[in-house]
Amino acid sequence: MAKDYNTILITGAAGRLGTELRKGLVHLAENVRVADRVEITDLAPHEEAFVFDLADAEAVENAVKGVDAIVHFGGAPLETAWKTILSSNIEGSYNIYEAARRNGVKRVIYASSVHAIGYYKLTDNIDETAPVRPDSLYGVSKCFVEALAQFYWDKFGLESACLRIFSSFPEPPERRMLWSWLSFDDCVRLVEAALTAPHIGCTVAFGLSDNKVCPVENANWGRLGYHPKDNTEFAREKVEAAVPRLDPHASATQHLGGWFVDLPHPDDEVSK
Amino acid sequence: MAKDYNTILITGAAGRLGTELRKGLVHLAENVRVADRVEITDLAPHEEAFVFDLADAEAVENAVKGVDAIVHFGGAPLETAWKTILSSNIEGSYNIYEAARRNGVKRVIYASSVHAIGYYKLTDNIDETAPVRPDSLYGVSKCFVEALAQFYWDKFGLESACLRIFSSFPEPPERRMLWSWLSFDDCVRLVEAALTAPHIGCTVAFGLSDNKVCPVENANWGRLGYHPKDNTEFAREKVEAAVPRLDPHASATQHLGGWFVDLPHPDDEVSK
Amino acid sequence: MAKDYNTILITGAAGRLGTELRKGLVHLAENVRVADRVEITDLAPHEEAFVFDLADAEAVENAVKGVDAIVHFGGAPLETAWKTILSSNIEGSYNIYEAARRNGVKRVIYASSVHAIGYYKLTDNIDETAPVRPDSLYGVSKCFVEALAQFYWDKFGLESACLRIFSSFPEPPERRMLWSWLSFDDCVRLVEAALTAPHIGCTVAFGLSDNKVCPVENANWGRLGYHPKDNTEFAREKVEAAVPRLDPHASATQHLGGWFVDLPHPDDEVSK
Amino acid sequence: MAKDYNTILITGAAGRLGTELRKGLVHLAENVRVADRVEITDLAPHEEAFVFDLADAEAVENAVKGVDAIVHFGGAPLETAWKTILSSNIEGSYNIYEAARRNGVKRVIYASSVHAIGYYKLTDNIDETAPVRPDSLYGVSKCFVEALAQFYWDKFGLESACLRIFSSFPEPPERRMLWSWLSFDDCVRLVEAALTAPHIGCTVAFGLSDNKVCPVENANWGRLGYHPKDNTEFAREKVEAAVPRLDPHASATQHLGGWFVDLPHPDDEVSK
Amino acid sequence: MAKDYNTILITGAAGRLGTELRKGLVHLAENVRVADRVEITDLAPHEEAFVFDLADAEAVENAVKGVDAIVHFGGAPLETAWKTILSSNIEGSYNIYEAARRNGVKRVIYASSVHAIGYYKLTDNIDETAPVRPDSLYGVSKCFVEALAQFYWDKFGLESACLRIFSSFPEPPERRMLWSWLSFDDCVRLVEAALTAPHIGCTVAFGLSDNKVCPVENANWGRLGYHPKDNTEFAREKVEAAVPRLDPHASATQHLGGWFVDLPHPDDEVSK
Amino acid sequence: MAKDYNTILITGAAGRLGTELRKGLVHLAENVRVADRVEITDLAPHEEAFVFDLADAEAVENAVKGVDAIVHFGGAPLETAWKTILSSNIEGSYNIYEAARRNGVKRVIYASSVHAIGYYKLTDNIDETAPVRPDSLYGVSKCFVEALAQFYWDKFGLESACLRIFSSFPEPPERRMLWSWLSFDDCVRLVEAALTAPHIGCTVAFGLSDNKVCPVENANWGRLGYHPKDNTEFAREKVEAAVPRLDPHASATQHLGGWFVDLPHPDDEVSK
Repeated sequence: MAKDYNTILITGAAGRLGTELRKGLVHLAENVRVADRVEITDLAPHEEAFVFDLADAEAVENAVKGVDAIVHFGGAPLETAWKTILSSNIEGSYNIYEAARRNGVKRVIYASSVHAIGYYKLTDNIDETAPVRPDSLYGVSKCFVEALAQFYWDKFGLESACLRIFSSFPEPPERRMLWSWLSFDDCVRLVEAALTAPHIGCTVAFGLSDNKVCPVENANWGRLGYHPKDNTEFAREKVEAAVPRLDPHASATQHLGGWFVDLPHPDDEVSK
Repeated sequence: MAKDYNTILITGAAGRLGTELRKGLVHLAENVRVADRVEITDLAPHEEAFVFDLADAEAVENAVKGVDAIVHFGGAPLETAWKTILSSNIEGSYNIYEAARRNGVKRVIYASSVHAIGYYKLTDNIDETAPVRPDSLYGVSKCFVEALAQFYWDKFGLESACLRIFSSFPEPPERRMLWSWLSFDDCVRLVEAALTAPHIGCTVAFGLSDNKVCPVENANWGRLGYHPKDNTEFAREKVEAAVPRLDPHASATQHLGGWFVDLPHPDDEVSK
Repeated sequence: MAKDYNTILITGAAGRLGTELRKGLVHLAENVRVADRVEITDLAPHEEAFVFDLADAEAVENAVKGVDAIVHFGGAPLETAWKTILSSNIEGSYNIYEAARRNGVKRVIYASSVHAIGYYKLTDNIDETAPVRPDSLYGVSKCFVEALAQFYWDKFGLESACLRIFSSFPEPPERRMLWSWLSFDDCVRLVEAALTAPHIGCTVAFGLSDNKVCPVENANWGRLGYHPKDNTEFAREKVEAAVPRLDPHASATQHLGGWFVDLPHPDDEVSK
Repeated sequence: MAKDYNTILITGAAGRLGTELRKGLVHLAENVRVADRVEITDLAPHEEAFVFDLADAEAVENAVKGVDAIVHFGGAPLETAWKTILSSNIEGSYNIYEAARRNGVKRVIYASSVHAIGYYKLTDNIDETAPVRPDSLYGVSKCFVEALAQFYWDKFGLESACLRIFSSFPEPPERRMLWSWLSFDDCVRLVEAALTAPHIGCTVAFGLSDNKVCPVENANWGRLGYHPKDNTEFAREKVEAAVPRLDPHASATQHLGGWFVDLPHPDDEVSK
Repeated sequence: MAKDYNTILITGAAGRLGTELRKGLVHLAENVRVADRVEITDLAPHEEAFVFDLADAEAVENAVKGVDAIVHFGGAPLETAWKTILSSNIEGSYNIYEAARRNGVKRVIYASSVHAIGYYKLTDNIDETAPVRPDSLYGVSKCFVEALAQFYWDKFGLESACLRIFSSFPEPPERRMLWSWLSFDDCVRLVEAALTAPHIGCTVAFGLSDNKVCPVENANWGRLGYHPKDNTEFAREKVEAAVPRLDPHASATQHLGGWFVDLPHPDDEVSK
Repeated sequence: MAKDYNTILITGAAGRLGTELRKGLVHLAENVRVADRVEITDLAPHEEAFVFDLADAEAVENAVKGVDAIVHFGGAPLETAWKTILSSNIEGSYNIYEAARRNGVKRVIYASSVHAIGYYKLTDNIDETAPVRPDSLYGVSKCFVEALAQFYWDKFGLESACLRIFSSFPEPPERRMLWSWLSFDDCVRLVEAALTAPHIGCTVAFGLSDNKVCPVENANWGRLGYHPKDNTEFAREKVEAAVPRLDPHASATQHLGGWFVDLPHPDDEVSK
């Protein structure tokens, strides 16, 4: 049977999640372009490596030419100095969307983040339509790209899924992650669902595994056909033994964004 | 143990779904009246056949006398000329409800349709309370009957379930049906749930199996106690191999009603 | 300055409200066709009379040819026998919409009714998006036309306003009408607003004056630009002196539809 | 591994549910204080008995000193005379909350009840945020405590879960309970989830097993991490054989509160 | 013209607002019973004085006998010790409702308070359906009475308006009151509207004048027919000159309840 | 009486709206800094001019030092090339917020735009909480700043009002502006309300006069205390005579953003 896509591009392909996606999406495309700022050398036969900075519009354009879908996981993955956020996440994502538009790409799957809505509380029970409340400049940049994705859909018909990944790690190392964890396999499932769903327009969805505690409503998973299979119960005993109970009055306990709400302004840090 | 109902009437009993309901609802009633415009000859001992047109009020009254519940699946099953819609679906259903009222019927289960809300998009994520947006005269007639059902509940205490069936076929033949499919068994489960739920007033519910992709919220399934057991994954490979990907910009891809949104006006067709 | 429309058609033009609309809409159109089942003889120079039954599709087509907008106030104005509702309100309105479509009419203003949502309570505080709850067959027919209007907008781009008129009389004769009254002048204002608003798609709005008590939310008046100027305070003393207080436990007091909720089934009445 | 709590207090510990909680929560705390108006004599080694009336503020204070969490299931469990409701449920619960505040208790799990919202209908499909509609003085007292719990969270940072238990019995003896049943094991699961969830502020949740019919939305179960495992299908045949179908027009069938909505005023009863 | 009521009872009639209501409601009833803990001596011919404590059920019963409507403004008007709240506001209001039920009173207008929802923020934009968030024991008692009022309507058909009065004083003495003020005249208008509206069931409404800033949605004013006529602009200059700007980060600035959110627990105060 | 602010900074002070704000806000501050890329020479005694580009972080910091509030109307006022949007609107606004934070500014009033939500339809009836749907890169930059403003409030306690100005011109030159117009005086009123409201956190509000047609819900005007006084009726006759009726099927007629939805991508234009 023909694969869903002829050629897809994965940005941030050398990163923690990019590495998983390279493995997990093999069956969806004939050719996979793997892009990162560092060179990827362990290429599979169906893979082609691209090395560039997302802020380099020409390099982005070059990597996007001939591509059917983009899995955009590149950019700064954490709170950092404004200049980096501006260049990697804002300019970089603009370059991706603009190249996608110029080259007739059909769908972009974007790694947004819980930090776009990190200032909501666990007790707010939000769904994906809640107005954004970022908890960091990093989160603000995610809001920017979500707005950009909506614009490219409404005006140019380029479909996007903005996946607000909570915490995707090999296993949950601390108590917050017992509810915020997205397993690598579920992360791949979520991206795959977003790539293959019949119609997504511009869809925002949360990136979570099927954990015991889930403090948000996942109203858009149905539209994507995402069904997580993992959860954190396997790690509960270990985590609870190793880490004391969260202080229920701590801001980091109460908010979706966790310790991001306690971060100082990154440009203050940088100046230190 | 006594069955739930003494006598039920199934209209459209010779049709695709009517045939399944004859088999599937056996355990719920002592006697089943099977009605259609064509004669049904393969009667089981507990069955009695009625042949009439729904627009014939007297014949309807005759078939409803002594009945405890009606499973009303009769009428034109697709977009067709206004005169047919008017006679079979509007007058016909009025006759059913009016006979039900006069004869003390307790509950009517009505085969409404996705086409009552076909102009919503998959990305609208509607639930059953969204204002109607029919995609056809057929769909408009479904809206009429839903309003009629609400009226007969509010004024006369006659309970109804209006089941908005999406696509109920032996198996999904095309890509849209990978999400819109209702298996025959789930269709029977849904009707059975509606017949046996403790209190339904006038309840609207969507008719879908437990498919991977589900672009609507099923807020009323809990009240009915409907739990679908089937899904389309068994057919995915075959369908995806046989049918090309849907064009995400096509109106038929984006709307719940599928290709109904592309239909011309039926009276234009008829005049051809 | 050019008038908004070259030619408009008013149906039910000999009726209570039709008579007001003939006077009130003069400034909006060069030519006004006034249609009713009875002949209108006091024609103004810009008026042309049409006499026909709405169920007569050909006559409707003939009256609609060359028309830019239709103010559809014809049909049975109260609860009555099903056969009359079916013919005058359902078939009749279908004929209007279908003729409008075939002849490129731009906008239809339809006299819907509170009786489409008469089973809501004053304490429900509904807006125009609440699912319909008709209180009569008359009300069910209003629901049918609203669904039809939505369909003709979604599929054929024919704009409609469905104005759910509460109680439009020269003055309020009873206590319920102290809140449900729509003055003749406000009725004209509402129709004019609907005819001249920049974009209405298919808009449902309530038809009420600016009365002291208002038990619904008028979320769509802004879109139409309707600003009622009248209210019932001028009549309060007279009404309260003449009519005893409403029984707060009476169904007719509690529901928007008033005494319609106490009506017997019209076909029962007819058979008496 | 250390237990979640050092010392917890269970009120109403001699009652139907209190007895289950004594068994079910063993693994969560080193020490369990079991309080009731009657003395509990079958104490386990980790248990300590307290005998007092909840209206006795000093005795309550004494039992709460040194406690980390309270499972407050004491008080009048059914509709009864106002004086009893006032003393046991209103004053009694105030004493609990006030002692909890003074003694730095971290979390109170309160046995609220369906009767706080008993006047909603099964067809209303409410979630936990619907304004209260109690069906009894008993229910009004539950509303009082929920308001009190919210106040103690907002002002003093004392976390609470208010669990609106529907019907928790060994098995469902009648038809309503086929949907309203909470198994003892699920009751324990719910309390445990509420005790161990990472952050609950003041959370209201419904107490139901995973029954076939579920007429409410459980939006807050995710936040607690409650996953019921039982349902009533095991008892359906027996119940349906023994008890006739519910009358769909009966108030007790239509409302969440069941037969509570038919109760006379308790002080009328008392005076008989 | 006959007055709306034969006899009404005003509790708290010697208080700040009670005094205004005695004057303002004159035209609505033939006889007015004015009740308070202190004796009222300046009686008008249509007035009769009652002196009792609300916790005295017999005295309440005696005052309510023969009454058509009750304007219940009595009870503790501010945060105070629990024992007082319990006796005056909880028991006292129960006595009022219970006497009203026994004596066929038609409507109770209850002075609820902003302090039933004082923990919402100005930026939350709540309407009357938001779950309660009291800011004081006083506020909790208001929540209790609102729940009780709903119960007496649902079960016994006794209508109530619960008016959540914000700040009703002769004029606004401080900055918060520039938005939270309810003039005495508007207070009378609100009570009058609640007494004369055609159907109110159990309606909760906010008590505010038409001030420049209004941080809540008044969805239920329409149902009551309340139209405030006053606002605080007349006092702005004076207040702003006398009082410094509010600190936007202060809890008392951000929450509807104002300085109530900063109050200590009243029983702590009492013990001082 | 003391003015509300000691020193405020107006950016874009040489622009169309900036010029009005210089006049209109005189009474609110002792000193006004007027900043623009071009030099302002007609300074009033209380004014001080600053000339700089918003992308120049140092110059921004310099202008903000010692300021109490900022009225940020600077930046590119229309769709334009990405590089300009990035520098003037994204970097420029970041510089403003960051300088505000470092210098203890209390409130920022930001000129956001209808183009942040331009892809909603007039018939969508949105309020300020609808997820963003920008119609241009310009609109995307407005979404970015709104997200940034929310972040600076949530994390640093810096209050903001984001005013989504529709069309602010001396008078409405075309038909769309009959509903989308914000008079200069109302624009000043809106900014003044935002500067003086008691608590705004981060508030988004629409910028519209009190026009006859209003296709959005203004849920947040109450919180700001904004009461528009102007409307477009004075200009209706002239506009309607000069400009033909809008095509109801045109995208620019149906969407809030008007002709922005028909714009090509600005970087395509630039390359022409």
